[in-house]
Amino acid sequence: MKLAERMSRLGTETAFAVSDRARAFAAEGKRVFPFHLGDMNLPTPENIVEAAYRAIRNGCTGYCPSAGCMDLRATLAADINASHGTKYSAENVAIQPGGKPVIGKFMLTLVNPGDGVLYPNPGYPIYESQIEFHGGQTHPYGLIEGPETFQLDWDSLQAGLGPRTRFLVLNDLQNPTGAECSQEEMERIAELVLKHNLFVLCDEAYFDIRYKGKSRSLVSLPGMEERCVILYTFSKKFAMTGWRLGAAIGPKDVIGAIAKLNVNEESCSNHFIQVAAVEGLTGDQSGPRKILSTLKERRDVAVDMLNSIRGVRCHRPNATFYLFPNVTEAMAGKGITGYPEFSEAVLQNTGVSFCTRVHFGRPGAGEKEHYIRLAYSGIDVDEIREGLGLLKAYLEG
Amino acid sequence: MKLAERMSRLGTETAFAVSDRARAFAAEGKRVFPFHLGDMNLPTPENIVEAAYRAIRNGCTGYCPSAGCMDLRATLAADINASHGTKYSAENVAIQPGGKPVIGKFMLTLVNPGDGVLYPNPGYPIYESQIEFHGGQTHPYGLIEGPETFQLDWDSLQAGLGPRTRFLVLNDLQNPTGAECSQEEMERIAELVLKHNLFVLCDEAYFDIRYKGKSRSLVSLPGMEERCVILYTFSKKFAMTGWRLGAAIGPKDVIGAIAKLNVNEESCSNHFIQVAAVEGLTGDQSGPRKILSTLKERRDVAVDMLNSIRGVRCHRPNATFYLFPNVTEAMAGKGITGYPEFSEAVLQNTGVSFCTRVHFGRPGAGEKEHYIRLAYSGIDVDEIREGLGLLKAYLEG
Repeated sequence: MKLAERMSRLGTETAFAVSDRARAFAAEGKRVFPFHLGDMNLPTPENIVEAAYRAIRNGCTGYCPSAGCMDLRATLAADINASHGTKYSAENVAIQPGGKPVIGKFMLTLVNPGDGVLYPNPGYPIYESQIEFHGGQTHPYGLIEGPETFQLDWDSLQAGLGPRTRFLVLNDLQNPTGAECSQEEMERIAELVLKHNLFVLCDEAYFDIRYKGKSRSLVSLPGMEERCVILYTFSKKFAMTGWRLGAAIGPKDVIGAIAKLNVNEESCSNHFIQVAAVEGLTGDQSGPRKILSTLKERRDVAVDMLNSIRGVRCHRPNATFYLFPNVTEAMAGKGITGYPEFSEAVLQNTGVSFCTRVHFGRPGAGEKEHYIRLAYSGIDVDEIREGLGLLKAYLEG
Repeated sequence: MKLAERMSRLGTETAFAVSDRARAFAAEGKRVFPFHLGDMNLPTPENIVEAAYRAIRNGCTGYCPSAGCMDLRATLAADINASHGTKYSAENVAIQPGGKPVIGKFMLTLVNPGDGVLYPNPGYPIYESQIEFHGGQTHPYGLIEGPETFQLDWDSLQAGLGPRTRFLVLNDLQNPTGAECSQEEMERIAELVLKHNLFVLCDEAYFDIRYKGKSRSLVSLPGMEERCVILYTFSKKFAMTGWRLGAAIGPKDVIGAIAKLNVNEESCSNHFIQVAAVEGLTGDQSGPRKILSTLKERRDVAVDMLNSIRGVRCHRPNATFYLFPNVTEAMAGKGITGYPEFSEAVLQNTGVSFCTRVHFGRPGAGEKEHYIRLAYSGIDVDEIREGLGLLKAYLEG
């Protein structure tokens, strides 16, 4: 069957090929250290599990409103207001079957064919895919390795600002770099948004995965609440990746349009999980705290070990569960120039599996350094130690 | 914020306005008999509930493959093969967060702007909405009241067959009429599909909601398996409307493309619910049997009572949980010519709430008869008796 023409513009997550390769390697009876997964190997907090079960028993198994249960919408609005200083109410929230649906629905709702959209590269590959799929013009902007964190490449951001550029995708607390904007950078972005009359998708998937300090949101700055849709997800904070629950939070007119898409695309999100999500937001918070402390321990072990490897250097991000070490010298030391060869050599010699720069977009012409992405959300601390020990031995050997 | 131009083409389910009106009426302290809901007031079978809880406890709370868990895909393929005589395997199945997502994904995957799509009117309003949203040309075909069931209006079907007509939406066992094709009609459709080189969306949401005889599928006829995508849902058979789980089943290339949309749009469907769905398909079947026997009793009471009302006549469909009685004379008897006035008068005088013909598409120019749609999936048999008793008293009074 001949597919519709638009399907030729649809991208994918090439990282899945890494999972497939790791699975095949493991099937040969070999040990794999899974740093490639963005998934979590931590249990969902007890109180959420029990709340879901109770909700099923209480008959929350029928449809609920397309925009989400009023209770959850109001609770989430209040939760965001508390951390963001915003003035959202239930009408500003449209519940979704995951955080990811917000990306596609943002593009469908707002982006006309030919509209320019700025988005991060390296960045989550679904932005580019959904922009192109719906006919938008792609304007990638870079992130440059600084001393403490990756920083927005303002030159590339400016370069993407043409007469038809109307949208910005901002993924502060970023996948894959773990980077975050400084207050000054954030203010400069807000200025640019106002000056160029942009509308923003704030992907805040990792807002609450934070080990030190306080996450900042663009929506907290003056004039931004009217110009941003927040991508919210229950996946990371509550270790609920496979439950599939998230939300779009933004101006009422845009959220109303997204809710109309909900009517058309999936009727509603799961009913009893929405009840459980209210428990997650308002009940005992020891579960999310435990998740954070586990992740923090993993981060510290991983960063310390990576920085102990000759030819590798790695930031210690205060948020997300990703590391994006520079491995330029380590690759050179092994006489390897390409990512696929490097990944395969490391896998064969150590079992360590990871994604690389190219799983997060095409490198720019001037990009000389090499990076890999390690996630520590799906691997225990002992395995981190063992795997990265083998990596050190191999790279320095 | 100015929405994208395509949003002006997005429709909705106007039936939600009926729910809103019924809710407002109830909020005044008045009794409502909810025949407007397509939702179910029956519990999900015990074994499915317990399987879901066990799966959460077993850690099925992380991501699963975008196309669905292999076990469920294979189990569902086998289940469909048993009832349809098809040769599907797991690769022919893409799991979805509900049955409804199959409609939009079918259009996105296959329909180019300007392509003609045949779809039923009266019919589920999301077909028309999704066709127009993605730039397809709408070619509605009618269903005509016959002595025993509603029948396809072949003239209108033929009229929609232009040079760019490439798709057919078939919702046999239909919402709202409850109608089904005869074997002869089904063969005639297959012939037409081959002759005009059409590709078909077979919405089989009500395939297993059947009280007598055996459901037929277009895919069971020669040459059709390659030309159909089945919309499958767990919602009705297992009373799981609010759980949100369904599937697209069809040729591997189309299903592969739909799975690529899954990657982009929602990553995957809920993990532990997929485990529970395997229990639903393979475990104890007393739950679905009980659901069917409850619905059958409701149908018989409702049909008998409707046919006892002067000026009302109603088929007794062997499938679905919908009734589409002709109320032309009853309306005339009350001196009412418009649907909104009729609905409001009945609600005010009896509390009986229902949808009408116009919630399922614009009536054709030649359409003289008037119909309402009653769902008996969300109302108990005692309430059916009481509500339709009041309806009879009002309409005959």
